[in-house]
Amino acid sequence: MGYMSFLDTFKEAMESKMQKPKIAIFGASGMVGGMFIKILEERVTDCELQLFGSARSAGKTIPYKGIDITIKETSEHIFDKIDYALFAVNGEFSKKYAPIAAAAGCIVIDNSSAWRMTDNVPLIVPEVNATDLAKHKNIIANPNCCAAPAVVALRPLQAVYGLSRVIISTYQSVSGAGVGGMTDLRETQQGNPPAHFPYPIANNIIPHIDKFEDDGYTGEEKKLMAEIKKILHQPHLPITATCVRVPIEYSHSLSINVTLQNEFILQDIQKLLAKSTGIVIGEPYPMPLHAAGTDNVYVGRLRRDESCPNTLNMWVVADNTRKGAATNAIQILEHLMGEI
Amino acid sequence: MGYMSFLDTFKEAMESKMQKPKIAIFGASGMVGGMFIKILEERVTDCELQLFGSARSAGKTIPYKGIDITIKETSEHIFDKIDYALFAVNGEFSKKYAPIAAAAGCIVIDNSSAWRMTDNVPLIVPEVNATDLAKHKNIIANPNCCAAPAVVALRPLQAVYGLSRVIISTYQSVSGAGVGGMTDLRETQQGNPPAHFPYPIANNIIPHIDKFEDDGYTGEEKKLMAEIKKILHQPHLPITATCVRVPIEYSHSLSINVTLQNEFILQDIQKLLAKSTGIVIGEPYPMPLHAAGTDNVYVGRLRRDESCPNTLNMWVVADNTRKGAATNAIQILEHLMGEI
Repeated sequence: MGYMSFLDTFKEAMESKMQKPKIAIFGASGMVGGMFIKILEERVTDCELQLFGSARSAGKTIPYKGIDITIKETSEHIFDKIDYALFAVNGEFSKKYAPIAAAAGCIVIDNSSAWRMTDNVPLIVPEVNATDLAKHKNIIANPNCCAAPAVVALRPLQAVYGLSRVIISTYQSVSGAGVGGMTDLRETQQGNPPAHFPYPIANNIIPHIDKFEDDGYTGEEKKLMAEIKKILHQPHLPITATCVRVPIEYSHSLSINVTLQNEFILQDIQKLLAKSTGIVIGEPYPMPLHAAGTDNVYVGRLRRDESCPNTLNMWVVADNTRKGAATNAIQILEHLMGEI
Repeated sequence: MGYMSFLDTFKEAMESKMQKPKIAIFGASGMVGGMFIKILEERVTDCELQLFGSARSAGKTIPYKGIDITIKETSEHIFDKIDYALFAVNGEFSKKYAPIAAAAGCIVIDNSSAWRMTDNVPLIVPEVNATDLAKHKNIIANPNCCAAPAVVALRPLQAVYGLSRVIISTYQSVSGAGVGGMTDLRETQQGNPPAHFPYPIANNIIPHIDKFEDDGYTGEEKKLMAEIKKILHQPHLPITATCVRVPIEYSHSLSINVTLQNEFILQDIQKLLAKSTGIVIGEPYPMPLHAAGTDNVYVGRLRRDESCPNTLNMWVVADNTRKGAATNAIQILEHLMGEI
C-alpha cells in the first residue's frame, strides 16, 4: 500500500468513525414523538436528527439541543439517507413505510403494534432480550406500554424460578392514549364531554382500552398477554390480563399475581429484583407520583399469596411515556449504535 | 273478660302495632352517617329517628323528612329507649358502646370493623346470608365496602359451581376514607399537600389502604379476604387481594379472577348473574360513572381466563357509600323489622 493510498484509507476510516448517525423521528409532533425527541436529547450524545410528520405538521419547528428543526413531510424516497428511523406513528403508517425504510437499508424502531407479533421482527425490552436484536431484518418493534414494565419485573423471576402463571390487572394513565387522552382528562374534569374515550374519564374508571374482541378481551389485553409471552420466549405461558384506564396523567401501574415453577423465599425475591437491571424497589411502595418522569420500573408490595403454592403478589409502576415507550425505544437505538 | 278490659287490651295491641320503630344513628355528622340518614329517608317508610354524635357535633341539626333533628351526645344510658342503633362510627366507639346497647336490648348494626370477625356476631350481606341474622345477639356487623359487592357477585357462582380460588385487585374511591379522603382529593387537585392520605391522591394511585401488617398485606386486604370467607361460609376459601386507592370520588371497582370448582359455559354464568338479586349486568361494562348513587352491584367484562381451567375474569363496581356501607346496613335493618 502506497503512502497516499494509506492516507486515503485512514481518512475514510476516520470520517466514517466521526460521521454522526443519521436519526429520524416520524410522528414528531405527537405525544410519543415529542417524548422520543426529549429522551434522545437526554441520552444520545451525538446524532444528526431529522423530524418527519403529517402534511398538517410539516413546516413547524421543534427545538433539539438548542437548534430548531423543521418537520418535513414523509415520502417514500427519504429512507436511504437515514440510519435509524424511530416510528412514533400509527399502525397503518408503519405497515406502509417500515418495509420501504427497511428495504432502503434504514433500521426502523417502531412504537406501533403493527409488527410486534411478526415472526422475524424482534420485540425488544433491552434489559430482557437485547440478544434478540441480532435477528433483526431492519424492523424492530417496541412493546406495549404495560408489557415493557411487566417483563422487566417478571424476567428475573422467570430466570431463577420459572413462571407458571401470571394474572395482571392494570391501572393505566390517560397519556397512554396520547394527546387525546390528556385533553379528555382535562376537559371532563371541567365537566365537558369526552372526545377521545367513550365515557368521561374524570372521576371515573374505564375497563376498556382498545377494541373488544369476540372472546370479551380488549385489544390492549390481547397485546399485553401476547407480547409478554414473545419477549419472555415462553409462548405457552399461562397468562391473563384486565386493562383499565384511570384518571391520572402519567405512569401505568400493574397489580401482578405470579405463580412460580419452584419454591421461593420472599426475601430472596426481594433481593433478586433489587439487583436486577432497570428495577428500583419503590419505597414505601411504587406510585405514579414517584415513577412519572423517570426511566425506572418500580417494583414493590411483594408478598406471598397464600391462596396458591409458590405464588406472590407484586405491584409494578413505570412511566408509560418513557420506559413504556420512548426510553425503551432509545435504549434499543443505543444497543444498535453500540453505545451499550 | 269485661268490656272495658277488652277495650284496654285492644287499645294496647293497636298502640303496639302503630308504634314506630325507634331508630338512632350514631356518627350522624360523618360521611357514612349522613348516607345512613339519606338511605333511611329513601327506603324506610316510618320510624322515629334520633341522631347522635360527638360532643363537637352535638347541638347541630340535620333535616330528616323535612324535620330538623338535633344531634345529641352519646351516653351510656340512652340505649334502652332505642330499638335499632345504626353505628357509623370508628371501631373504638363501637367496641365500647355496642355491648352496652346490646345489653339494654337495643339491636346494633355496626359499620365499623370492630365486630365483623367476632364469632357470635353475624356479618351480613342480605342478598347472600340474611339467614345468619337469626343467630344475632343484638350486634350485627356491616361488611367492608369491597367485601359487600364482592360477595354479591361471588355468591351465585359459589352456589352453582363452587369457588376454588379468588384473586382481587381493587380500585377504591376516596369516599371510602370518609370526609378526609374527599377533602384530600379536592385539595391535592389544587396542588395543596395531603392531610389524610400519606401521599397526594390527585393524579396518583396509592396501593395502601389501612395499616401494613407483618406479612406485607394491609389491614384493608386482610379484612376483604377474611370477610368474604365469613360471609360465604367458606373459611378455607383460597383468596388473595390487592387494595388500591384511585383518585375518584364514589364507587369501588374490583377486578376479580375466580376459579370455580366445576366446569362452566360462559353464557350460563352471564345468565346466572343477570338474574341474581342485587346484581345488574353493567352495559357496556360497569363503571363508577353509572354505579355512583345507585344501590346495585354492577357486574361485567365476564370472560374465560384461558390460563387456568374453570376460571373467569369479571369486573364488579358498586357505590361504596351505598351498597358498600349505608344501603347494606339499611337492608339489614329492613330484614330485622320484617319489611323484607
